[in-house]
Amino acid sequence: MKTDIEISQEAELLPIKAVAEQVGLTEDDLEAFGKYKAKIEFDTLRRLAEKPAGKLILVTSINPTPAGEGKSTVTIGLGDALNAIGKPTVIALREPSLGPVMGIKGGATGGGYAQVLPMEDINLHFTGDMHAITTANNALAALLDNHLQQGNQLSIDPRRIIWKRVVDLNDRALRHVMVGLGGPIQGVPREDGFDITVASEIMAILCLATDIEDLKQRISNIIVGYTYEREPVTVADLKVEGAIALLLKDAIKPNLVQTIYHTPALVHGGPFANIAHGCNSILATQTALRLGEYTVTEAGFGADLGAEKFLDIKVPNLGKAPDAVVVVATIRALKMHGGVSKDALGLENVAALVKGFANLQKHIENMKAYGLPVVVAINEFVTDTADEIQALKELCEAIQVPVELTSVWGAGPVGGKALAERVVQVIEAETPNFHTIYASGVSLEEKITTIVTEIYGGKDVSFSPKALNQLKTFHKYGWNRLPVCMAKTQYSLSDNPALLGRPEDFTVTIREFVPKLGAGFIVALTGDVMTMPGLPKHPAALNMDVMPDGTAVGLF
Amino acid sequence: MKTDIEISQEAELLPIKAVAEQVGLTEDDLEAFGKYKAKIEFDTLRRLAEKPAGKLILVTSINPTPAGEGKSTVTIGLGDALNAIGKPTVIALREPSLGPVMGIKGGATGGGYAQVLPMEDINLHFTGDMHAITTANNALAALLDNHLQQGNQLSIDPRRIIWKRVVDLNDRALRHVMVGLGGPIQGVPREDGFDITVASEIMAILCLATDIEDLKQRISNIIVGYTYEREPVTVADLKVEGAIALLLKDAIKPNLVQTIYHTPALVHGGPFANIAHGCNSILATQTALRLGEYTVTEAGFGADLGAEKFLDIKVPNLGKAPDAVVVVATIRALKMHGGVSKDALGLENVAALVKGFANLQKHIENMKAYGLPVVVAINEFVTDTADEIQALKELCEAIQVPVELTSVWGAGPVGGKALAERVVQVIEAETPNFHTIYASGVSLEEKITTIVTEIYGGKDVSFSPKALNQLKTFHKYGWNRLPVCMAKTQYSLSDNPALLGRPEDFTVTIREFVPKLGAGFIVALTGDVMTMPGLPKHPAALNMDVMPDGTAVGLF
Repeated sequence: MKTDIEISQEAELLPIKAVAEQVGLTEDDLEAFGKYKAKIEFDTLRRLAEKPAGKLILVTSINPTPAGEGKSTVTIGLGDALNAIGKPTVIALREPSLGPVMGIKGGATGGGYAQVLPMEDINLHFTGDMHAITTANNALAALLDNHLQQGNQLSIDPRRIIWKRVVDLNDRALRHVMVGLGGPIQGVPREDGFDITVASEIMAILCLATDIEDLKQRISNIIVGYTYEREPVTVADLKVEGAIALLLKDAIKPNLVQTIYHTPALVHGGPFANIAHGCNSILATQTALRLGEYTVTEAGFGADLGAEKFLDIKVPNLGKAPDAVVVVATIRALKMHGGVSKDALGLENVAALVKGFANLQKHIENMKAYGLPVVVAINEFVTDTADEIQALKELCEAIQVPVELTSVWGAGPVGGKALAERVVQVIEAETPNFHTIYASGVSLEEKITTIVTEIYGGKDVSFSPKALNQLKTFHKYGWNRLPVCMAKTQYSLSDNPALLGRPEDFTVTIREFVPKLGAGFIVALTGDVMTMPGLPKHPAALNMDVMPDGTAVGLF
Repeated sequence: MKTDIEISQEAELLPIKAVAEQVGLTEDDLEAFGKYKAKIEFDTLRRLAEKPAGKLILVTSINPTPAGEGKSTVTIGLGDALNAIGKPTVIALREPSLGPVMGIKGGATGGGYAQVLPMEDINLHFTGDMHAITTANNALAALLDNHLQQGNQLSIDPRRIIWKRVVDLNDRALRHVMVGLGGPIQGVPREDGFDITVASEIMAILCLATDIEDLKQRISNIIVGYTYEREPVTVADLKVEGAIALLLKDAIKPNLVQTIYHTPALVHGGPFANIAHGCNSILATQTALRLGEYTVTEAGFGADLGAEKFLDIKVPNLGKAPDAVVVVATIRALKMHGGVSKDALGLENVAALVKGFANLQKHIENMKAYGLPVVVAINEFVTDTADEIQALKELCEAIQVPVELTSVWGAGPVGGKALAERVVQVIEAETPNFHTIYASGVSLEEKITTIVTEIYGGKDVSFSPKALNQLKTFHKYGWNRLPVCMAKTQYSLSDNPALLGRPEDFTVTIREFVPKLGAGFIVALTGDVMTMPGLPKHPAALNMDVMPDGTAVGLF
């Protein structure tokens, strides 16, 4: 069987100009990066924003398990299949982080015959957006520490700095560090820590900003820490919003690439959905909506994380709700949610599947709670048996949810045809009645309680003493009216990664908040979730190599 | 008077294809990055390497002062002027680091009417090389700390790790840090530090590697630290040379841009000359030598640093010595070397100029000691008086060195015509008799002593107890036969930045060594030189901004 990278290297790509022409763009609309990647110019983005938007399909999934659910693969395959049935479609995805690429996954551009290309480039440095974000984030940190060193005119309390440095890598040794050691000319000693770049507020801002002015305003609003008098200090106080925005002037432009079947794909922005808001950029989605009659996009991890934030954070900024939601599940993953161990997933087990269906059912209910039409996509695996497939279809039909088997991984667009047709049918038949899960005016505690009880299915919320203290500050400054960005394990509906299936009666603990006023939300850290992942015992990097001609090896 | 960025934004650039066509390259030889930047493909590099090399001109300078000497400007202007007098010329430069760009200088792409363009892009993220190097360096660090965390099979002593993380910023608070704090699941606590990216061994390797295989071999050879038994641990031991090389597969390709007057310029690699080897990449220089009849290149800071390393480290790898050396000086800077304060540089002072000439004279003598023909370029400033210019010319003529006034900053190629003609004349008349300053087989102590006494003009060398201890290790492993890469202040011929002019009778202290076996040299840290710069009280970043259409502001 061919690996993803082998399939991708055999694919014949169209010049990016030709991909752009399919959606009415010319060479002047593009800033090419090599032959197969391009950024879309500002003028074009502005011109397109005037056009009416097409239909939006959001792809989400059950809680991920080590068995895999294949959400990106289905997203890409569905886009290809829609084009194949004559519905002009553009895909809008997030760009991968090198952390998981070098760590566990080895790549994040779909799989099999549903990939965005060139996969090596997209998985490695792509058009440099991640690096620009890392640099902008760390330039701000360096300027902040320099302010402390050069007299600290703003009276910033070094113990109350909340702006962390970032690297786009899994590097646990940087989670908790001391900086500024070595004596008076080496900076002001203080406790600090690094996050992974995708958790940076700069990433969130890049994904939510609608143009350079909005970008700069949002950067100005970032809270970097507090003074000795506990007053917030912003980037505007440091007067460096211009420099930080300048470092992002190209990164803010969406990237155009193509799938194996030449479907245009805008791959731009990549916040993780467990520790950040989990959606690709507003500019990319907005542009895709103007370039295609249909846009297929995804939000990270399960519907409790990515989709919740897509709907409660991104949609109000985007000004357009999905016309349908596709929830992806695999029979293997549902069996894991039903209690089967990883070793036994190859064996038929309808009972476990029925039990694990509870996880899928909760996500379906949640998406319907937002007033959105839902379609279930069963992403087929070779180990699935006819009885299992039949059982899952019946479970979906019993709760009146359309369901289709897809095999885009092995078969490409043909394998997604039934799903594509079903999604179009649903969109043409049903009018969504979208509303966010919480009203925008309610308090932070109320928003979190609503998410925990209504989306996660938990009993209640417990706030740590630190979090309760922070809530007082937020109330003082009026920040508790902002949306909440939940940081929670992706593996469970609860904040305990071990609770698979559809846990009940659990309490979610809010450990700490991080105010992100540039992004326009408050991050709530639950359970043990970490904003800097670690590498596994055998990192994917150990399998990687490069041939003398520059060909990449080992990026699965 | 127009600023550099205003001049650059008014310039009409040719499409990069047209620039490439001037030197016989087609679109197939290029990987475009936007309309005005491109990388040169591997196949092309290999094909060109078969061709005979043209003439090589190395531009260097006196010790820099706050008055400025304009080495990059003269390098670019000389290239333009050579083309203007009918000598097909390609320029080979280093790429800027964001550290000084955001810190002091605000840009490093020449000035006035002698600039490489697009200056905003080159000064900011360019084609992403710096970021790829930063990422490769830090991926190695993360994999190393992960090795410690996951059982430390290689028995690496956490107290004896020498591989540091990097950022491409001036960030003094990262010079000395503690990492791995926070308990057993957050890594192994140890002392650590960050360097600026341009000091990374990965940068040196990228600049010295001749192809992907050489790159990978050099990466394998990197020493990351020592075991508890004091045995060196290499990247090959960690088995991650493939992954690290993969991250550099595009960064290793030279970047093609143009000057205001459309002279092709290869801008690639950017080690600083005070803390690293200070030369652009072998691949870029080698390629330039095949594309032009003349190649003009520069080495960083004064001839004691950049030129010494160009001649003793780069030339043996490049396999081609310069045909002539241009030493750049300004009357203002020589007056500073003669004792004039910065405020009084606008006033005529021939006596101080005569005194300060000693600095220029020492660099001229040094270049001649390598067996190379020398031309002095006086980079004209508006404050220079006729008497001062006349005096400087006479001083040069008295020691039989050709000298020409250049005004490329204000006048472009016309202002460099006399210099260009003189350099061609010298190259056509004189045959260089190049030799490195030390024989390759002698010990490290001997090499350092030769550099200190013959190049710096010092009395002797003092080795710290730590350095002496390290020499024993190096001797044990045979590393003391490697070339030395001196890390020294750029401001003085000595290791004390306050000693301007031509100091004598000084001792240079070797504080510590850093073995860089991938680069193939041993770094010798002298005096107080730091491998991570700090930001000044008013960083250049404070003046930077970006307009709503993406136009950069404040990159001088």
